[in-house]
Amino acid sequence: VEEGDREQLIALMEPLHPADIADLLEQIEPGDRRRFVALYGREFDGDILSELDETIREEMIGLLSPQVLAEAVRDLDSDDVVDLLEDLDPEQRDAILGALGASDRAAVQQSLTYPEYSAGRLMQREVVMAPEHWTVGEAIDYLRASDDLPEQFYHIFLVDPKLRPVGKVALGKLMGSSRAVALRTIASDDFRIIPVLQDEGDVAYAFNQYHLISAPVVDETERLVGVITIDDAMAVLEEENEEDILRLAGVSEEASLSDTVLETLRGRATWLFVNLLTAIFASFVISLFSDTIDSMVALAVLMPIVASMGGNAGTQTMTVAVRSIATRDLTGSNALRIVRREIVVGALNGALFGFIMALVAGVWFGVPMLAVVIGSAMLLTQIAAAFGGIAIPLILERLKIDPALASGPFVTTVTDVVGFFAFLGLAAAVLL
Amino acid sequence: VEEGDREQLIALMEPLHPADIADLLEQIEPGDRRRFVALYGREFDGDILSELDETIREEMIGLLSPQVLAEAVRDLDSDDVVDLLEDLDPEQRDAILGALGASDRAAVQQSLTYPEYSAGRLMQREVVMAPEHWTVGEAIDYLRASDDLPEQFYHIFLVDPKLRPVGKVALGKLMGSSRAVALRTIASDDFRIIPVLQDEGDVAYAFNQYHLISAPVVDETERLVGVITIDDAMAVLEEENEEDILRLAGVSEEASLSDTVLETLRGRATWLFVNLLTAIFASFVISLFSDTIDSMVALAVLMPIVASMGGNAGTQTMTVAVRSIATRDLTGSNALRIVRREIVVGALNGALFGFIMALVAGVWFGVPMLAVVIGSAMLLTQIAAAFGGIAIPLILERLKIDPALASGPFVTTVTDVVGFFAFLGLAAAVLL
Repeated sequence: VEEGDREQLIALMEPLHPADIADLLEQIEPGDRRRFVALYGREFDGDILSELDETIREEMIGLLSPQVLAEAVRDLDSDDVVDLLEDLDPEQRDAILGALGASDRAAVQQSLTYPEYSAGRLMQREVVMAPEHWTVGEAIDYLRASDDLPEQFYHIFLVDPKLRPVGKVALGKLMGSSRAVALRTIASDDFRIIPVLQDEGDVAYAFNQYHLISAPVVDETERLVGVITIDDAMAVLEEENEEDILRLAGVSEEASLSDTVLETLRGRATWLFVNLLTAIFASFVISLFSDTIDSMVALAVLMPIVASMGGNAGTQTMTVAVRSIATRDLTGSNALRIVRREIVVGALNGALFGFIMALVAGVWFGVPMLAVVIGSAMLLTQIAAAFGGIAIPLILERLKIDPALASGPFVTTVTDVVGFFAFLGLAAAVLL
Repeated sequence: VEEGDREQLIALMEPLHPADIADLLEQIEPGDRRRFVALYGREFDGDILSELDETIREEMIGLLSPQVLAEAVRDLDSDDVVDLLEDLDPEQRDAILGALGASDRAAVQQSLTYPEYSAGRLMQREVVMAPEHWTVGEAIDYLRASDDLPEQFYHIFLVDPKLRPVGKVALGKLMGSSRAVALRTIASDDFRIIPVLQDEGDVAYAFNQYHLISAPVVDETERLVGVITIDDAMAVLEEENEEDILRLAGVSEEASLSDTVLETLRGRATWLFVNLLTAIFASFVISLFSDTIDSMVALAVLMPIVASMGGNAGTQTMTVAVRSIATRDLTGSNALRIVRREIVVGALNGALFGFIMALVAGVWFGVPMLAVVIGSAMLLTQIAAAFGGIAIPLILERLKIDPALASGPFVTTVTDVVGFFAFLGLAAAVLL
């Protein structure tokens, strides 16, 4: 790119998968991206756009000439076009829609009417279907005759006269059966229908849980309107996991490496601000015991240990709880048992590390009662951390608040406040 | 189950997917599981075993009678049997192997010779292949004639006379072409071969990156020995994500809700112990400034805020870094740019929250120099947190240590030590 050698660039890109080209574009500097587009020109493939990060994608769409853009999107499946359009401003959106053929445009516009994160946005409209009374031979002849089959498909959906899906036939099964066999008799017994308004997270869960490869999507009147395939579900699952990880760490779930400084700052500052408030609250608890600390400075030295151990134990339990809720392993029916187990584990951890810390403090400062105080405080804090770590996500889930997003501040507040209060309070009562 | 009504249990389970039955088994008490098995008896399906958590799975295998077990595993694909055997003790393993037919047994034993977490363990041996010179018609006739096709398959792999894969034909393409067409001409242009020793994480990455549905696995002599399908890759991806999340929170990556108290304790205590050491180290830093704290107790009240904000900012940056390394978005070529961006973001966050905290401290304690000290300390700590948060995972990755597992303690140590040292050190220098 540096040298402006168009031929060589095209030759270099030729063997690469669009996903790799997209990764490459994400990693180079904006200036290089501009030169890349200018050089690469008409070779630019729609699939590269699909693979790009949102931020970079918008930038690229701005850089591409309208003709190249039109060319690029024309070959995409409808779900990829929808995915592309979702995040664009209206002007760019219209430009791309204008580039599509009339029937594709109608399909895409229809998909855009479904709510974001619904099955309707995820599905592709290109469906291969057959009347339920057909035979294998009829299906094969039909497939041979039709010239715009989707690029990839794995099942033929059987529909009744009202276009409601009633079964699906795996292509492998179809190929292995003789022409006279009725499609109905070789339909998969594992058949799940997805309503067009279902949340994409639930769709991904169903694919993962039931090992689906493709599933029919139906509208409110139960008519077949599209198909979702496992690769789309895999992408959603990956996205949701990413979201959970980032949210647990207090980072905006839309964070990406190609964000600008300002976007990154915004994504982090909210959480840090919430944390500042809880930290100030914890400091306020400490300030209640200023006199106690004043008369024994060792308390100031040791108190962060109690809070830090509590915070870590709380985060452990909370992370397990949040994940188990997300994977639906933690439900109403086993919640009580798991809460009990966590509290037992917390108590044991508290006893173990309380004992160790009591020894350390005793040897360090030579005050036996200080050892007793820190040991007991750690036990209490660990139990509180365990209880808070599992109860808070469960309560948030019950209140329909995303536990991954909101549990952190609450759990930290509980462990900090209990930690400082138990340690300094016991010290005030026992030592002075 | 409670009432011991066998008929009713079978009727209730009938419409459920094996994955749902497995979830149900995981959620009930061990005593109920025993009764379930006794009642359900011969209906027990091998797929249920595949879907179970390891701990529960071992328990169930112990409960099932040898005949039921033999019956259950006979219908499984070879990759599922391998998955099942991996975690069993030798005695149970032999019992299951004994139940298999001779050729299946040989296939499974062969797979078990590949290292754990390799493509060889993940693949299934049932492959549909065709000589590269065949036509569509020949392939269809062959498929119709063979009576043990895999349950699900999506591609036919073309092989040369030495059984080396040279291409794959999507079934959809096959169906849409007339009988005379040569298979070679309709082969997918997107064809990736997986070596049998490749790490399963790399396999999952390839499936996700290139939207593969199935891919051929070859041995050292490049002969086709198996096939990996997207649902296996999806399971690996899900597992690796889970591992990352748990490791980031300092929980053993094999943690599951069905663990006993002791297993849970073991999975958590290691990390808590490491954290205890770093916390004691941080306390030691504080103890260096005992005299300073003694002369101004406000320092003890405020110091946890500096450390806590640093810890959180460090965790944010670290989480983004660890994930970006895992998804291969953060590489050698853009590392420097990202490190620079993180430091700028850290400095801006430090300036912002340092300023807020300076105001709060100034109003709270009425000592202007204390406000200056805490503001500057927060600025320094935020920059250190940003730098540590990204540099530590990158360095660990370079040293071939899993950043998700080991970054936490290092980052916390850096933020705690820098936080306390900066705050108390500045206070000692300026205020006294």
